[in-house]
Amino acid sequence: MAQKPSIPKGTRDFSPEEVAKRNYIFSTIKSSFENFGFQPIETPSFENSSTLMGKYGDEGDRLIFKILNSGDYLSKADEKLLVDKNSLKLTSQISEKALRYDLTVPFARYVVQHQNEITFPFKRYQIQPVWRADRPQKGRFREFYQCDADVVGSKSLVQEIEFIQLYDDVFTKLKLEGTTIKMNNRKILSGIAEIIGASDKLIDFTVALDKLDKIGADGVTKEMLSKGITEEAIEKVQPLFNFTGSNLEKLGQLKEMLATSDQGLDGVNELQTVVENISELGLKSASLDIDVTLARGLNYYTGAIFEVSAPKGVKMGSIGGGGRYDDLTGIFGLKDVSGVGISFGLDRIYLVLEELNLFNAVELPKPKVVFLNYDENSSLLALKALKKLRENNIKSELYPDLGKSNKQQQKQWKYVVNREIDYAVIKIENEIYTLKNIKTGEQSECNLNELLNTLK
Amino acid sequence: MAQKPSIPKGTRDFSPEEVAKRNYIFSTIKSSFENFGFQPIETPSFENSSTLMGKYGDEGDRLIFKILNSGDYLSKADEKLLVDKNSLKLTSQISEKALRYDLTVPFARYVVQHQNEITFPFKRYQIQPVWRADRPQKGRFREFYQCDADVVGSKSLVQEIEFIQLYDDVFTKLKLEGTTIKMNNRKILSGIAEIIGASDKLIDFTVALDKLDKIGADGVTKEMLSKGITEEAIEKVQPLFNFTGSNLEKLGQLKEMLATSDQGLDGVNELQTVVENISELGLKSASLDIDVTLARGLNYYTGAIFEVSAPKGVKMGSIGGGGRYDDLTGIFGLKDVSGVGISFGLDRIYLVLEELNLFNAVELPKPKVVFLNYDENSSLLALKALKKLRENNIKSELYPDLGKSNKQQQKQWKYVVNREIDYAVIKIENEIYTLKNIKTGEQSECNLNELLNTLK
Repeated sequence: MAQKPSIPKGTRDFSPEEVAKRNYIFSTIKSSFENFGFQPIETPSFENSSTLMGKYGDEGDRLIFKILNSGDYLSKADEKLLVDKNSLKLTSQISEKALRYDLTVPFARYVVQHQNEITFPFKRYQIQPVWRADRPQKGRFREFYQCDADVVGSKSLVQEIEFIQLYDDVFTKLKLEGTTIKMNNRKILSGIAEIIGASDKLIDFTVALDKLDKIGADGVTKEMLSKGITEEAIEKVQPLFNFTGSNLEKLGQLKEMLATSDQGLDGVNELQTVVENISELGLKSASLDIDVTLARGLNYYTGAIFEVSAPKGVKMGSIGGGGRYDDLTGIFGLKDVSGVGISFGLDRIYLVLEELNLFNAVELPKPKVVFLNYDENSSLLALKALKKLRENNIKSELYPDLGKSNKQQQKQWKYVVNREIDYAVIKIENEIYTLKNIKTGEQSECNLNELLNTLK
Repeated sequence: MAQKPSIPKGTRDFSPEEVAKRNYIFSTIKSSFENFGFQPIETPSFENSSTLMGKYGDEGDRLIFKILNSGDYLSKADEKLLVDKNSLKLTSQISEKALRYDLTVPFARYVVQHQNEITFPFKRYQIQPVWRADRPQKGRFREFYQCDADVVGSKSLVQEIEFIQLYDDVFTKLKLEGTTIKMNNRKILSGIAEIIGASDKLIDFTVALDKLDKIGADGVTKEMLSKGITEEAIEKVQPLFNFTGSNLEKLGQLKEMLATSDQGLDGVNELQTVVENISELGLKSASLDIDVTLARGLNYYTGAIFEVSAPKGVKMGSIGGGGRYDDLTGIFGLKDVSGVGISFGLDRIYLVLEELNLFNAVELPKPKVVFLNYDENSSLLALKALKKLRENNIKSELYPDLGKSNKQQQKQWKYVVNREIDYAVIKIENEIYTLKNIKTGEQSECNLNELLNTLK
């Protein structure tokens, strides 16, 4: 019954080395999350379909993996739908559960369901896989991890300030220097919409403006006009065509430009508070950059919008993002709970660290020493030594099979070399261990305590 | 569009405290796994259905969660099956993927798929959730974690010896003293089958024998007779009716009893090697107990069989188990690769630790100190102090919202008390911090360095 084994497209196996590197990123993020006062929660991999469906738009609904009901799932299905082969309408009759699509909606569900056990403001983090039936491509998978930190139950800008520090803290710990934390505010975008006279043109506007570097002011103007933005409107937002200088200078320009928009000015003031605090506090390796073209999740965010870019020279989409949303839990019936959160893009961060050779500090999951097994009588002695080493947290093992023949002994050496293990104990006699440093070839004879001290 | 939120039956949300306790168990197991030379791998949550189906028996197949194909999944379905509402046969036409049911089959698939990248013997561990559409009940869930360590590519008994040490190491670290590691060998069971003259009665035999404590020798004999085991056969295995003494004494009795069975003697000799080595090496808190009634996974295991019981006085099924299987990867076309592995039952271990109050060493995910926020001017000073504390890995936070009114200030206190936080900074003036120890009520004024030293 031999089958050629494979895995579903868009999914991955992770080798020991990959798991170690991924865990290095996860544990770095976790330690920063916890230092900043965030608490971990976990939610089930699948939710009731009613919890997820309708929360991500039609396209999102389509990309949610549905789980077939157990047992005789067709017994209660509508016969007409079956005969008509109406996949779309049949789904809800034969599937009641679905794999989570992100961590945000399950978090909102969690907050509402457990509201009486939670002390607000609730700072939670969650690092779990999510699933999307997306077309797989480079860097896009059907199963991938999200690493989210959110605060619900506070409107204070302290959170925005801390999230910038948090990004800086994580990327500095990962030695990923030179990231840019781009920040915008939904209210500034609303202000711009007011100024250009049409909120439905806002996305066209930001998309065009974002091309300034590539196609110049003339090209951008041309594109805006083609999208139906009037010359007069473009005139009003001229400062954005030469939007340079420090963050405070940019805010100064925005303040003038948005002078007639209360909401716009609100946004500018919020950003100003954040920028001033961050400039007092200092960042370790990241820089903060006001970017009015930043409009991710436009319909979702209501205040701050964040996005992080990798260091210059690394070609990679955003490696993190987030923002403030004023009514996250409303969909589940709990009104007026403001939330703000950020997310780290694990897979992209992994690729960036790989490209910049920043994984060299990661301890790979391999033993520090292997006891070769050439001699029938010494395996018990090896096990005794291993007990002591392991009690001192030294990863160590005995090659299990006795190597009597030359060929068998070669196999043991190959094991040590292939796995790039640092040390081998090649002989035990009268409680004296012959330790070989594989890299240098150096050999030394030592007792158990000396062995322990060398390997520590 | 308010919905009353809930989660699917058999699944769980984990609160921050529960996550912390579970992670304590996971990281204890992981550190032992790695000290013993095991390497982590991860496999996708869902596999191709063909990888999983047919590997767990009919009942298992039924309990596998199937994932509905994306898009117009009915378009290619057989019309007759739809009209007949033939759920059973339709499944393979509308579902190509399924959630993994355990970690063993995906591991076998991994080994075969990656055989050219793997250096054998391959010691891998894997800690990931699995899913089963089982009827939920106390301690049985539809989503739960398995923690497995296996070695493939070696027949050496060193592994069996090390797995016993590994169980002992983990449970000792968890301070769960007094566990019993029960051990048997499939070959001894085969020997007994030979002796009693019928291998098809072996399960009836072990089930009856297992009741010795409860119903006595007469009761057991009666049950065996009723199952068709002859009086003559029962006579031959009389030693098992008074199967006491040390492990070596038990092995002595088995040796006599199984003198005519080569396979049986093989099993006894294997056990003897393990028992002798363990008795030389010593266990820290567990004891090893030969138990010939142990027959878990009878059709699966070919050598050693393990099962771990919680300390006496704790009512709980087995908290771990495993054994040797000679042809794990054969189902995927790679022959003659022997494997041996053990598993830790996370959920049951959790319940046992909870019952015995053994979680008190777990650091809960809460800040060590909260800066109260009563004063508009001091929030920046608080953020500066927090930066320093966090750089020293002190979990800390600023209450985000300014407490101007009495009511708002009360809310901050309530936050500190509800979350059982140890310290609060209640005032900052001229870079002097007033620190309150919440338990003792003691207050002290200190500078930033003193604050850091107190909280370290």
